[in-house]
Amino acid sequence: MFMEAINHRATNPYIYARDKRTIDIMLETKKGDVEAVELIFADPYDFKGDQWQYKTKQMIKTGSSQLTDYWKVSVQPEYRRLRYGFQCMDKDNTKIIVTERGFYKTIPSDIGNYFCMPYLHENDIFQAPDWVKDTVWYQIFPERFANGDSSLNPEGTIPWGSEEPSATNFFGGDFQGVIDHLDYLSDLGITGIYFTPIFKAYSNHKYDTIDYFEIDPQFGDKETFRRLVNECHSRGIKVMLDAVFNHSGYYFEPFQDVLTNQQDSRFKDWFHIWEFPVKAEGYPNYDAFGFVASMPKLNTANPEVKKYLLDVARYWIEEFDIDGWRLDVANEVDHAFWRDFRNVVKEVKPDAYILGEIWHDAMPWLQGDQFDAVMNYPFTNGAVEYFANQQMDSQTFADSITNVLHMYPQNVNEAAFNLLDSHDTARILTMAEGNKDLVKLLYVFQMSFLGSPCIYYGDEIGITGGDDPGCRKCMEWDESKQDQGLFRFVQRLIKMRKEIPGFGNCAKFRFLVIDGNTVVYQKQAGEAELIFVLNNSDQAKSIEVEALSNRKAIELFFDQEVLQEEAKVKIEAYGYKCFQLHN
Amino acid sequence: MFMEAINHRATNPYIYARDKRTIDIMLETKKGDVEAVELIFADPYDFKGDQWQYKTKQMIKTGSSQLTDYWKVSVQPEYRRLRYGFQCMDKDNTKIIVTERGFYKTIPSDIGNYFCMPYLHENDIFQAPDWVKDTVWYQIFPERFANGDSSLNPEGTIPWGSEEPSATNFFGGDFQGVIDHLDYLSDLGITGIYFTPIFKAYSNHKYDTIDYFEIDPQFGDKETFRRLVNECHSRGIKVMLDAVFNHSGYYFEPFQDVLTNQQDSRFKDWFHIWEFPVKAEGYPNYDAFGFVASMPKLNTANPEVKKYLLDVARYWIEEFDIDGWRLDVANEVDHAFWRDFRNVVKEVKPDAYILGEIWHDAMPWLQGDQFDAVMNYPFTNGAVEYFANQQMDSQTFADSITNVLHMYPQNVNEAAFNLLDSHDTARILTMAEGNKDLVKLLYVFQMSFLGSPCIYYGDEIGITGGDDPGCRKCMEWDESKQDQGLFRFVQRLIKMRKEIPGFGNCAKFRFLVIDGNTVVYQKQAGEAELIFVLNNSDQAKSIEVEALSNRKAIELFFDQEVLQEEAKVKIEAYGYKCFQLHN
Repeated sequence: MFMEAINHRATNPYIYARDKRTIDIMLETKKGDVEAVELIFADPYDFKGDQWQYKTKQMIKTGSSQLTDYWKVSVQPEYRRLRYGFQCMDKDNTKIIVTERGFYKTIPSDIGNYFCMPYLHENDIFQAPDWVKDTVWYQIFPERFANGDSSLNPEGTIPWGSEEPSATNFFGGDFQGVIDHLDYLSDLGITGIYFTPIFKAYSNHKYDTIDYFEIDPQFGDKETFRRLVNECHSRGIKVMLDAVFNHSGYYFEPFQDVLTNQQDSRFKDWFHIWEFPVKAEGYPNYDAFGFVASMPKLNTANPEVKKYLLDVARYWIEEFDIDGWRLDVANEVDHAFWRDFRNVVKEVKPDAYILGEIWHDAMPWLQGDQFDAVMNYPFTNGAVEYFANQQMDSQTFADSITNVLHMYPQNVNEAAFNLLDSHDTARILTMAEGNKDLVKLLYVFQMSFLGSPCIYYGDEIGITGGDDPGCRKCMEWDESKQDQGLFRFVQRLIKMRKEIPGFGNCAKFRFLVIDGNTVVYQKQAGEAELIFVLNNSDQAKSIEVEALSNRKAIELFFDQEVLQEEAKVKIEAYGYKCFQLHN
Repeated sequence: MFMEAINHRATNPYIYARDKRTIDIMLETKKGDVEAVELIFADPYDFKGDQWQYKTKQMIKTGSSQLTDYWKVSVQPEYRRLRYGFQCMDKDNTKIIVTERGFYKTIPSDIGNYFCMPYLHENDIFQAPDWVKDTVWYQIFPERFANGDSSLNPEGTIPWGSEEPSATNFFGGDFQGVIDHLDYLSDLGITGIYFTPIFKAYSNHKYDTIDYFEIDPQFGDKETFRRLVNECHSRGIKVMLDAVFNHSGYYFEPFQDVLTNQQDSRFKDWFHIWEFPVKAEGYPNYDAFGFVASMPKLNTANPEVKKYLLDVARYWIEEFDIDGWRLDVANEVDHAFWRDFRNVVKEVKPDAYILGEIWHDAMPWLQGDQFDAVMNYPFTNGAVEYFANQQMDSQTFADSITNVLHMYPQNVNEAAFNLLDSHDTARILTMAEGNKDLVKLLYVFQMSFLGSPCIYYGDEIGITGGDDPGCRKCMEWDESKQDQGLFRFVQRLIKMRKEIPGFGNCAKFRFLVIDGNTVVYQKQAGEAELIFVLNNSDQAKSIEVEALSNRKAIELFFDQEVLQEEAKVKIEAYGYKCFQLHN
């Protein structure tokens, strides 16, 4: 056995509490190297004489990626304590025992050898709000969704959709515009709106905050916002706002005070200033977002700054009953701040959703003490490169998605914010070079995956756009210019996700077959079993799906009863099927 | 290259801030598989046009264990931000680039591929108090160190040392006894005392607390304790107390109230009770330490309990100026509690030491937000099995110690509490079956290792004792029965550790030669370089130490100037040498 490739450590994501009774445990082994793995486990204090009373339990191979097989098992320790190890067996029946102190040929009797999960404390469990798992998000860039009150138009506003979006133009989108189109969103079926920033700011994107306690006047006032939240709630739609706490804008009063009073400013420790005089043009002499002088980094370790920002976090929940915070550039803010942030937010609203913007591996923020989720770009990357860009082969795609599923605990995956694109990327239809068949495959995959999917406004009717600012076009409200077919397709997928057991969240996911440009994956939740077949190519195909052999199934997209005698599935170019099996 | 064995993730211990400017980064590769590794790195926002301006830096192989080579490097990113990857090269000059998204043959241009250390925040750094790194601890079990005030003797106290220690006998050790012998401890050279529990309790070990705000009357009163702390401080000795917060004792008032009033007790949520009536005999029907009915587990998630215990933590620092808390059964208490505990302790005394009792892998507690250190049993296990038990070959020993050095960040290792034995294990002289030569080797190794070493009371004069309660014998104060030679040996080692650059903490440690029963290791700190040769056998030996070849050195134990022309070191049975090199 390749012991070098056997990985486990008694930390996330290898061991974690899934709920207050259940511990999930994972072992990694070299791909194809190990035939079976058993967990060896018992309460650390369960002895008869000097014999530790361990039991064993078979582990399941839950997936394989390029180099690795993943093995998982769940246990419910009676006294919420656990010592454990692993017994790996290869094809020749050779056994190796994996412990914290290394590898053994026989099961060691000294309990000190074993890995330890000392005690399952409910308050240490990663617990995202339950509602998130059933939510389908819709991301709105407020300046570009709808202009419902032209009296609020900022100076220089140009007619809706009359120009390509630029870094500086304004089209006058506002809250009334959103309220006016809530029926549209309800009709689509979404159940949560993520608004990019709405607080008083300078730019059209509002990521350069002037005042965190004020609504930007171009969007409306607090009463309009309150009405918007209430209207959303009455339709069963949650509301999430964008907290830009890593940096302020240039016109944020404390920063202006620093520019005016320099080292005498009482706000000089609100930022990370290298030297005086502060120069805010060109390359800044203070920490900033990137090297953007107009976005000075906030010193979130300063108790005054922390209090100010935590008051902001509390205010918009307490006063307006918002349901979540999306945290901009969350990775560059200190962990200590986010721990306090979580305490404040959960104290005011225990089931508020805390979503961090982190593009890379975010395990340190997802241990239960900070975020409920991150924007799941590792998911995005695989999906976009495979379907939209056609730049990835099916095996690499399956490997990358299997990786995503095993890089975090299962309960983290179930709350992940799964996006295909955003205001920070090109739009999917543009990435797919206008091929709507590919966009449909992307939606089938996204909507049938674990986590909380998000649709970027307008994608559902075929809006295009390249990288920022191209992706920030005005929403198209002229129905004749909307792709109604695509809208109905997305609408149907959302409905299927909501109604069909196993289609959406909290299900097991695994790839069954990789064949050329076609992938087959299985979803399982309790009794429910679904098998998806997606053909990511312009060629029709017939594919062998052993798991369908001699089983009765209904194909859900076309509502056809099928008996798959031969286990052959015919699938057209860019086709997608979902078989619901009778178990 | 064996990509399956290449390990890195952007979390501890693979990446961490060593101080407010320095990031340490580690990569693991299969032993012997890779010839050289380079870090590829730059600020995440450092672009010229669309070209990321990465640099490279050679990594150092800092050690090898059974299956793994460890590579480390330090960088000081100008803007405290870092994206990075690795370039591995094998003997055939084949190169592989290791990124967060997988392996590449050439350096990828998309920065999204790279691992990320988003921003180095000073308040997220693991920071143990500086003084700990220079401290030599002495562990005192107060009932057994010295009886200085017989008026305090509890009922049934028997004459000092008149019996073997049992689970129930009392010899009357007290604070006055400790005060009386502080000169002895100063003479030995120790600079910190760790007291097992001193609060009012039932047993002789006092781990079954009755009142956390009271001194156990057999030890003295608060004034005596205050005098003890002051006397210690005036001698430059720190004082650490034992916080038994996982469980209380049977006679703890809140638990007594539960026994009396059952479900009507206002303290019923202070514990984890399964059902009423509570039965505290035999196998308890509530959570306990192990299954010990007299040690009911405290519900540290209950805000009342938390407040009570945090008040305890604060009280003994504020009122008596103690310098540290050792946390009993620390692994079974929730992380949320320990985070608040750290905040309270560091607020009252920023340089207090927080030491958790954790016998297994303790990475989750050593991220900077909870403990400064744990009792370093992985170190203990290797040292004891190799030297004392003679049950481990030299290679396995070196592997296990190299493992210990790479399982945690360097700054964690520098604050680790390195013990050879304790009140919970047999004594080292007994484990070594009375062979004092082996005990001396153990002390040489312990005192020349990174971390904060601890001597269990009486070991320094040759006290023996098996597992608890055997290891809790009365201290021997009859000088004719003390091993004065051993005392002077330990005393000398402590002096060497304090005075010789590189002997003690904050130095690099690596094994140079493993030859039969002899190990050779190198310590380096700045210009200082020491080479230790330890012969763990009863046979004299001549050993090749290439690093000594043609270099001028002083052997420090025997104070001999040597020019090692042939790089041969002659070493007697159970011999030890320490060469100080002239660089």
